[in-house]
Amino acid sequence: MTEKPHVLIHSAWYEPAMRRLDELAVTHHLYEAEDEAAFLAEIGPKCSVIGTMHYCPASLMDAVPDLKLVLNFGVGYDGVDVAEATRRGVKVVNTPAVLNDCVADMALSMTLGGRRHLVQADRYARAGRWPVEGDYPYTLNVHSTKVGILGMGRIGMEIADRCKAFKMDISYHQRTKRNDVSYRYYGDLEAMARDVDILIAIIPGGDATRGLISEAVIEALGPEGLLVNVARGTVFDNDALARCLKDGRLGYAAIDVYPDEPNIPPSLLEITDNLTLTPHMASGTHYTRNAMGMVLYDNLKAMIEGRPLLTQVN
Amino acid sequence: MTEKPHVLIHSAWYEPAMRRLDELAVTHHLYEAEDEAAFLAEIGPKCSVIGTMHYCPASLMDAVPDLKLVLNFGVGYDGVDVAEATRRGVKVVNTPAVLNDCVADMALSMTLGGRRHLVQADRYARAGRWPVEGDYPYTLNVHSTKVGILGMGRIGMEIADRCKAFKMDISYHQRTKRNDVSYRYYGDLEAMARDVDILIAIIPGGDATRGLISEAVIEALGPEGLLVNVARGTVFDNDALARCLKDGRLGYAAIDVYPDEPNIPPSLLEITDNLTLTPHMASGTHYTRNAMGMVLYDNLKAMIEGRPLLTQVN
Repeated sequence: MTEKPHVLIHSAWYEPAMRRLDELAVTHHLYEAEDEAAFLAEIGPKCSVIGTMHYCPASLMDAVPDLKLVLNFGVGYDGVDVAEATRRGVKVVNTPAVLNDCVADMALSMTLGGRRHLVQADRYARAGRWPVEGDYPYTLNVHSTKVGILGMGRIGMEIADRCKAFKMDISYHQRTKRNDVSYRYYGDLEAMARDVDILIAIIPGGDATRGLISEAVIEALGPEGLLVNVARGTVFDNDALARCLKDGRLGYAAIDVYPDEPNIPPSLLEITDNLTLTPHMASGTHYTRNAMGMVLYDNLKAMIEGRPLLTQVN
Repeated sequence: MTEKPHVLIHSAWYEPAMRRLDELAVTHHLYEAEDEAAFLAEIGPKCSVIGTMHYCPASLMDAVPDLKLVLNFGVGYDGVDVAEATRRGVKVVNTPAVLNDCVADMALSMTLGGRRHLVQADRYARAGRWPVEGDYPYTLNVHSTKVGILGMGRIGMEIADRCKAFKMDISYHQRTKRNDVSYRYYGDLEAMARDVDILIAIIPGGDATRGLISEAVIEALGPEGLLVNVARGTVFDNDALARCLKDGRLGYAAIDVYPDEPNIPPSLLEITDNLTLTPHMASGTHYTRNAMGMVLYDNLKAMIEGRPLLTQVN
């Protein structure tokens, strides 16, 4: 019987699924260490696998000289230096597909909540304003609107399926047109923003999409427009967003992701009337977090048994 | 040219549509009167039409002896004494159909917001808890759940159409089984509540449905269950709901309607962690309120021109 591999777990993920790795491996939990450097120096050389949530720069790989595999909890792996991993012959896996439904659900939750002012209406009711000031002001509707999806990948397709049930007219933008969908394609994001009522961002992060949703795009969406971001905090110009929400150039925004998580830009925190803020939780359900953890489990098992990895990205 | 009819408007509805009645009639706005009794005594005898939002008891009809038509802004008319109107030969119209989409959208907004804790997550983010306490706790998912719709009328059908896009398994309860839908029918509400994750109420109010969602039904929904009410405040036992939310027998509720609007029961207001409260706004969009107002306009026009009414309920 071969010895169990050692896994360095940089950051904890869904506990019940993470703990199941102990069936397959000896796990070492860096995030529990008092002295991280000492822990890494002692444990790193024993390990052949790193488990992480979106974080694995070359410096972390340096501490694990026999590294063979990086398990990334999440579909986005912009914090993992995949080019460097590839150079070192290290394989990287992520957890695609299993989170599509919950992220799409959250995108719709923020779309519906944003258009119908769920957060603000709850505040209004709880502040006792209804009997004093009368009905909550009329809001904009969801059904029969035009939605533009920025990123028509697997999650974008799930979002589009849901939007159809709300009788929405669907467009999308990304670098290349898909030949297998009939939704309206825009080669230019600003042109799409000008034509739609609602813009939902679900593109990958990283340098290729940094600042893509510029002030001009936000302005094009307009004073009755809604911007939903369940992608990455880097795809936005957050200061421009704050300015446009404050002076009415944009109607409403619902944001789940930020450039410097877990910190939320103060310029956004101070906006209450036309902004919903959630702490990066689009995939944050028991159902999905467990499923994501089990994808990593299954990949580790495949590596141990000499089978091909299931969700390799490099 | 015949004289314009006089319309007594008891309560104001969507202003731009309400003001268009002036094209057809002489309108008198009771809600603007300083002395309502004096206003009614002077104006009532001139009028042949009453316009109202859900309120027209026999006593109001008494003030309008030549009453021929009641225009009720809203699909629900449980505050209009229709039996009495019929006895007097008075016709009653409501505004069905045009609000189906917005009410269904709101039902889904509350369903998605409730399951994914949109209101609570926004509070958590704004209170600065994310960097201090870590990620928001995992929530329950929306997709692939079982939903029970209480009232499979026109709005219920719209809700079901939307739920399908979230891959939900759909059941319904009402007095009689529909022969034209394939959704699972339950003759017993408590049995349905026991089997589903989410219960959405969209049945008419009035005596026939008073207290239908009893403590036993709420308990049957259970500690992971979600209750959404976009129907009427009378269909609930609000005190039982408060008790079940407090002691965990029910997971979450999202409520748009109350027994004594615009007052919200204090027992509900004090519950913050597992309850969304909105001030009766399911149809409260510009789009729908305008459309509802135009249904009343079209009915009044039909009466004046001697054509059949469009949405008569008696």
